Amino acid sequence: MSKKQHIKIATIGGGSSYTPELIEGFILRHKQLPVSEIWLVDIPEGKNKLDIVAKLGQRMIDKAGLDIKIVPTLDRRQTLKNADFVTTQLRVGQIDARILDERIPNSLGLIGQETNGAGGIFKAFRTVPVIFDIVKDMQELCPDAWLLNFTNPSGMITEAITRYTGFKKAIGLCNLPIHTQKKYADLLGVKLDRVRVELQGGNHFVFVTDVFLDGVSIMGRFIDIYLNKKEDTTMKNISGMDFSPALIKGLGAIPCSYHNYYFHTREQLDKQLKDFENNTVRGEVVKKVEEDLFKLYSDPNLNIKPKELELRGGAMYSDAACNLVSSLYNNTGDIQYLDVVNNGTISDLPNDCVIEAACVVTANGPIPLNIGKLKPEIAGLIQQMKSFERMTIKAAKTGDRNTAVSALNLNPLIDSDLLANKVFDELYKVHKRYLPQFDL
Amino acid sequence: MSKKQHIKIATIGGGSSYTPELIEGFILRHKQLPVSEIWLVDIPEGKNKLDIVAKLGQRMIDKAGLDIKIVPTLDRRQTLKNADFVTTQLRVGQIDARILDERIPNSLGLIGQETNGAGGIFKAFRTVPVIFDIVKDMQELCPDAWLLNFTNPSGMITEAITRYTGFKKAIGLCNLPIHTQKKYADLLGVKLDRVRVELQGGNHFVFVTDVFLDGVSIMGRFIDIYLNKKEDTTMKNISGMDFSPALIKGLGAIPCSYHNYYFHTREQLDKQLKDFENNTVRGEVVKKVEEDLFKLYSDPNLNIKPKELELRGGAMYSDAACNLVSSLYNNTGDIQYLDVVNNGTISDLPNDCVIEAACVVTANGPIPLNIGKLKPEIAGLIQQMKSFERMTIKAAKTGDRNTAVSALNLNPLIDSDLLANKVFDELYKVHKRYLPQFDL
Amino acid sequence: MSKKQHIKIATIGGGSSYTPELIEGFILRHKQLPVSEIWLVDIPEGKNKLDIVAKLGQRMIDKAGLDIKIVPTLDRRQTLKNADFVTTQLRVGQIDARILDERIPNSLGLIGQETNGAGGIFKAFRTVPVIFDIVKDMQELCPDAWLLNFTNPSGMITEAITRYTGFKKAIGLCNLPIHTQKKYADLLGVKLDRVRVELQGGNHFVFVTDVFLDGVSIMGRFIDIYLNKKEDTTMKNISGMDFSPALIKGLGAIPCSYHNYYFHTREQLDKQLKDFENNTVRGEVVKKVEEDLFKLYSDPNLNIKPKELELRGGAMYSDAACNLVSSLYNNTGDIQYLDVVNNGTISDLPNDCVIEAACVVTANGPIPLNIGKLKPEIAGLIQQMKSFERMTIKAAKTGDRNTAVSALNLNPLIDSDLLANKVFDELYKVHKRYLPQFDL
Amino acid sequence: MSKKQHIKIATIGGGSSYTPELIEGFILRHKQLPVSEIWLVDIPEGKNKLDIVAKLGQRMIDKAGLDIKIVPTLDRRQTLKNADFVTTQLRVGQIDARILDERIPNSLGLIGQETNGAGGIFKAFRTVPVIFDIVKDMQELCPDAWLLNFTNPSGMITEAITRYTGFKKAIGLCNLPIHTQKKYADLLGVKLDRVRVELQGGNHFVFVTDVFLDGVSIMGRFIDIYLNKKEDTTMKNISGMDFSPALIKGLGAIPCSYHNYYFHTREQLDKQLKDFENNTVRGEVVKKVEEDLFKLYSDPNLNIKPKELELRGGAMYSDAACNLVSSLYNNTGDIQYLDVVNNGTISDLPNDCVIEAACVVTANGPIPLNIGKLKPEIAGLIQQMKSFERMTIKAAKTGDRNTAVSALNLNPLIDSDLLANKVFDELYKVHKRYLPQFDL
Repeated sequence: MSKKQHIKIATIGGGSSYTPELIEGFILRHKQLPVSEIWLVDIPEGKNKLDIVAKLGQRMIDKAGLDIKIVPTLDRRQTLKNADFVTTQLRVGQIDARILDERIPNSLGLIGQETNGAGGIFKAFRTVPVIFDIVKDMQELCPDAWLLNFTNPSGMITEAITRYTGFKKAIGLCNLPIHTQKKYADLLGVKLDRVRVELQGGNHFVFVTDVFLDGVSIMGRFIDIYLNKKEDTTMKNISGMDFSPALIKGLGAIPCSYHNYYFHTREQLDKQLKDFENNTVRGEVVKKVEEDLFKLYSDPNLNIKPKELELRGGAMYSDAACNLVSSLYNNTGDIQYLDVVNNGTISDLPNDCVIEAACVVTANGPIPLNIGKLKPEIAGLIQQMKSFERMTIKAAKTGDRNTAVSALNLNPLIDSDLLANKVFDELYKVHKRYLPQFDL
Repeated sequence: MSKKQHIKIATIGGGSSYTPELIEGFILRHKQLPVSEIWLVDIPEGKNKLDIVAKLGQRMIDKAGLDIKIVPTLDRRQTLKNADFVTTQLRVGQIDARILDERIPNSLGLIGQETNGAGGIFKAFRTVPVIFDIVKDMQELCPDAWLLNFTNPSGMITEAITRYTGFKKAIGLCNLPIHTQKKYADLLGVKLDRVRVELQGGNHFVFVTDVFLDGVSIMGRFIDIYLNKKEDTTMKNISGMDFSPALIKGLGAIPCSYHNYYFHTREQLDKQLKDFENNTVRGEVVKKVEEDLFKLYSDPNLNIKPKELELRGGAMYSDAACNLVSSLYNNTGDIQYLDVVNNGTISDLPNDCVIEAACVVTANGPIPLNIGKLKPEIAGLIQQMKSFERMTIKAAKTGDRNTAVSALNLNPLIDSDLLANKVFDELYKVHKRYLPQFDL
Repeated sequence: MSKKQHIKIATIGGGSSYTPELIEGFILRHKQLPVSEIWLVDIPEGKNKLDIVAKLGQRMIDKAGLDIKIVPTLDRRQTLKNADFVTTQLRVGQIDARILDERIPNSLGLIGQETNGAGGIFKAFRTVPVIFDIVKDMQELCPDAWLLNFTNPSGMITEAITRYTGFKKAIGLCNLPIHTQKKYADLLGVKLDRVRVELQGGNHFVFVTDVFLDGVSIMGRFIDIYLNKKEDTTMKNISGMDFSPALIKGLGAIPCSYHNYYFHTREQLDKQLKDFENNTVRGEVVKKVEEDLFKLYSDPNLNIKPKELELRGGAMYSDAACNLVSSLYNNTGDIQYLDVVNNGTISDLPNDCVIEAACVVTANGPIPLNIGKLKPEIAGLIQQMKSFERMTIKAAKTGDRNTAVSALNLNPLIDSDLLANKVFDELYKVHKRYLPQFDL
Repeated sequence: MSKKQHIKIATIGGGSSYTPELIEGFILRHKQLPVSEIWLVDIPEGKNKLDIVAKLGQRMIDKAGLDIKIVPTLDRRQTLKNADFVTTQLRVGQIDARILDERIPNSLGLIGQETNGAGGIFKAFRTVPVIFDIVKDMQELCPDAWLLNFTNPSGMITEAITRYTGFKKAIGLCNLPIHTQKKYADLLGVKLDRVRVELQGGNHFVFVTDVFLDGVSIMGRFIDIYLNKKEDTTMKNISGMDFSPALIKGLGAIPCSYHNYYFHTREQLDKQLKDFENNTVRGEVVKKVEEDLFKLYSDPNLNIKPKELELRGGAMYSDAACNLVSSLYNNTGDIQYLDVVNNGTISDLPNDCVIEAACVVTANGPIPLNIGKLKPEIAGLIQQMKSFERMTIKAAKTGDRNTAVSALNLNPLIDSDLLANKVFDELYKVHKRYLPQFDL
């Protein structure tokens, strides 16, 4: 069991603005994690960004005085060949597709969002065929590599892989759990590593059902601390409202930031419709932020990850990924929050679905800490969301319009069968070129 | 095992406009079901209606030349004493409470309805304390009697009894299944008894997952027949729209009439808000219908159940009840659709919840035909609705505001935590006198 | 849905001594069940018996004045072609193989029995390849026919079909439940059709967990009646002992006749070892009985089923089969005890295993009445036996010696890993020609 | 969350010969675990041994130069008062009761053993009332203390507590898992801490279903290493035989030492009956070993744990206990093998049963790593053993003879209902004074 001494990282969607964080992560961990090559692959449309990011990455590494090679390329198969860890952070259709995912539902009076509602469903529809191709290549070119997916909707994409491809080494990642853990540590005035949480649910639909300080459950009094907090704990990319004390106490669980869409649907929609009219939907804002970031990245004197990156919603994503790579490599046995196959961890969700849970990370992969039955207060919401996700994944796989429309109908953010049909047709029209599985 | 030859029926809420149908049912079955007394009990506020109905009932029996005694009374304990079958068809707060259940949610921009959404939740809150009293009396005065509950929300009320009182002989009833069976028989152009359906779900939230003609599954072609139907198959009390072919085919199941509120929420709300402005919400319409019915009932020459009763939403309810009484008494082993404790019939719902399912009726009670796992396409919706119901029942039992507000938040028709809090407070204010369990 | 007016029955192993009972069954039901052809197929080694039985059958039909054609043949494919119902009552290796199944375990100091222990395991090993061939032919020649399996071990053979062949219309049958029901009716002094039982378990390992008289549960007092019975209620082919009152009351369930092997293992073994020495093991006795029966059958004046047949252990088997054929054909909805796929009927057994349970028989097949969780007192025994059966079926399918030896080890009647290996090798040696799936 | 700086240990059955190992354990861990008092309590009959052990313990501590007080006492309530950790290592009826547990079954031709078969059942019957008393005292005197039970049958005693007393902080311990882990490390030629195993089952009936070296699963090749081992890996107190390669490969799992009783029942029984005749049943041997040990312990010059202790079957038990105390105190998050409430860790065992599983140890207690469904090859055996255990616990709680006899019948080592009744009556007669719950 002697460990490999030269690790090859393959990053799909390497031209992403998040890449500098990823590279910083490997730099910070170089003592325990001997990365020797980081291949960044992108599509031709992303070549310019890719080059900018790769150069910045190399400058960061040079500054750190390390011997890591950054390889920007458009050749995905070459990138995957003999890779040890593959990370995916791609966006099919790029930022413009996201803007459509947001504006078209809005135009019909529906929530438009990147990973929730109709927008999230179509992001899944576009991503699944691409991820299936990547996995097929991995099965040929690097069958023993780990796939760390942080392409959104991360939970659904991971479940599509684990359910349909037979590839066993895929792990989904999200920055929401680590963000939550950090905010709670701040509320408690302690260091991050003294806080652990129990999660129940799936990616972007997870509840905190217990909080541990130095291993001891403090949920009862933490709810009070949480309710009395002054600061907004919502993530950057979500315009949050407070959940009512009655809701949190009645559930005995704390909803996550994304639950804003579900418990404040009406208010979120009102806000979105204003942004829609002002042409400031989130995708439009992000597009501007990204342009600014890449201007910064282009500065030949910049050789560190710029502070401005942290303002993007995805901050800590890449850090979580580097942590995971290191723990898998070193068999550390530490606890991380990951998207993994349920396999009975939560008794009342299907065995083959992907959940987001606290896992012990070993060289053999993450092993979830047992949860048992869902808290009855939140069980139905989670089961319903999971059922919707499974229908979406099935539609993404089969390309069946009936299944897709039903998935839209199952989504709690779409309150009309009529609009489910309509929003499908309109989003399909604009995204058709990315949806080869649908043959309508 | 010789059977009792003089059956005593106790009907709580005996002054209901449905009572003539119940009496007609016993008249029609008198050969196999020797009913000798029907006690109709009501509250003082309902005495006038009670007398009208009792007299009509006696005229119907006299016309049939039978020896059945109708006993109108305000004494519930006397009514229950030694009863063989108890039927409950009460409405706490009478029709005016219903109108508030509809108008107050409407005033906040929410669906207002008797058994769904905020209105249904408060109807449950008002009914549960009363039904607990009735069961307590039964445990003392007629512990071996069957309780046939058709007080709405019928599924939740039945589950409140089976989960919290230890009383084992409660069965819930709804006219929706038999209505569905009848409509399907009509669509197929055959007699009712040649058609059987498989149901999955709970009361007022049930899907048809299979249709059998002469015992043979015909679901595949039945969906086409159903989609090509000309006539509206929605129940009288619901203003229905067609479900889209994509939805029905994608689910592989046919939603029930009440699913109009869930799959056409936006459109139903629009329609309701118009009725709200015109003072024609359903309760207001029913109030008028009831007044007309009681005028008819008062006619001393009327000695049959008048045709006009069938226009009320509850038609066939009492007929279903008489069928059930007869099958329990005669151990017939025929199949009826009833609200019974799940006990593993549906593997992915809690064992102790109440489901609506096809049951073989025996002298020992109904035994559900096994179903197994829910169809995955509809599993989440049903689990979520059941989870909501369980939270509502818990709130009805405990009188805890946090639980109640959470139940409102879990309801798919309430899309805002803010409004969940608000609608609770407003409905609580007007119904307070009927909600002794809440001590706010 | 007009019903076919000319039913073709195909009976595999038609030369069995039980066939006259089957024919009698169809004669008695001819009014509701228009059988026009009964094909009896057997292997060349059974031709003589086949001819005797076919002639007797035809004489019985002629006496009844019916127009049913008996067709004896060695051509299985012709027999299956367009059949409506296929019954299997074959014995691979005939009676001599059974004698080996009994004597070889005995020679090692183990229980030897036709359907239990090492003998039953090897009967399954021999039968499964043949039944797979039959099913393959049916899928081609009569894909809509029902397969009624009463070849032992009936539960395992049926589960082999339902788990491995994709054929959905197989139903297993045993005479034990109807025999039990009859004995209980006798103990109660009432007619058979007033008694119903609840069964939990699988074929030949089933417990009675409730007894109903006219639909009413009487389990409590029935246990006392059962314990005070004078008569032996064990089946003809099992030498029974009484179960202790402590056992029956502690379990709250009545074991079946075959449980004699499991709860009286030591005493059964002692008895068998004496029979072994006297050359009177059950197979040897049956061989003699069969010879006598066929002498009787050969009498050209015999034109009814002879009384002597009832002394065979399998009495009422064929009657149960005819009942089932009639109920499937007529969609009667009556309750029969059948071996069917669990599908959640019993929550704590695998969904895809075959259980023996009370079913409503419809034209679409049997639907089990829901059971829920096993009684905890007997759950482990049933789960363990089912686990053993599944391992046996897997070994019968794969022909893997390790799996087979493990199955033997899992069997409660084999108390030594050493002997499990040894009895496998010895039985394999003598039955090798019937075990093509094993390639050792 | 500042940690207590003076830990009080309470050891029930403190006069046990294992106590020096326990004391050694605390000495070795004194840096991370500030134990200041170890109270050793015993019954009057054990006073002599208690004094010997206490003195030896104090000499060991003095030699180590630590400030830990050993307090020998007969006052249990004083011992428990404000204790932080309570360990139980008691034997009701002392070694002579064990000898009866072994010899009486033997005299009836049954396996006699301390924790298995009839002997184990009666040990549970005797221990449960005592442990309930202890827990009751703890709930009053040290409600926040952890109870570490290593009284056998450890799994059943722990489950009796968790199911019937409402006390949440009980953890069961056995030395078998750590012994297994150590033997496997030796077979692999690596250090203990590089090896991890996955266990499935309960205490003394656990299978190894996976082996990890440095976190990587090596089960496939480990089975070959295991089968080719030269050395006997069975525990000291069990006379082992090798399991056949067919069994291990067919199950895909390695049985534990105690499975010798179940897979080699016949051979174990033969061996025991010889020991029975020679008056060398295990209890008789142990009695002699104990006497020798206490002679050693009495030596005023002895101030370390003597090597001879390791020859007792329970070696490493106390070490495992000290490890657990330290990890609970320090919230280490390391993985230990413990007997804990299942709570869905194994999906196909009851939620409220106790299993033996790999757990992450936190200050809040052990959290089991999720397992999911049992391997189907061993599922039935484990379910059946657990079912037997639950029946035994129920009998131990209720004192119902029918339940007790049924539990004996459910045990795989008792192959006769007749003998189940007989062995109950004979063991009851001799142990009656310790069985107050039975009122026969």
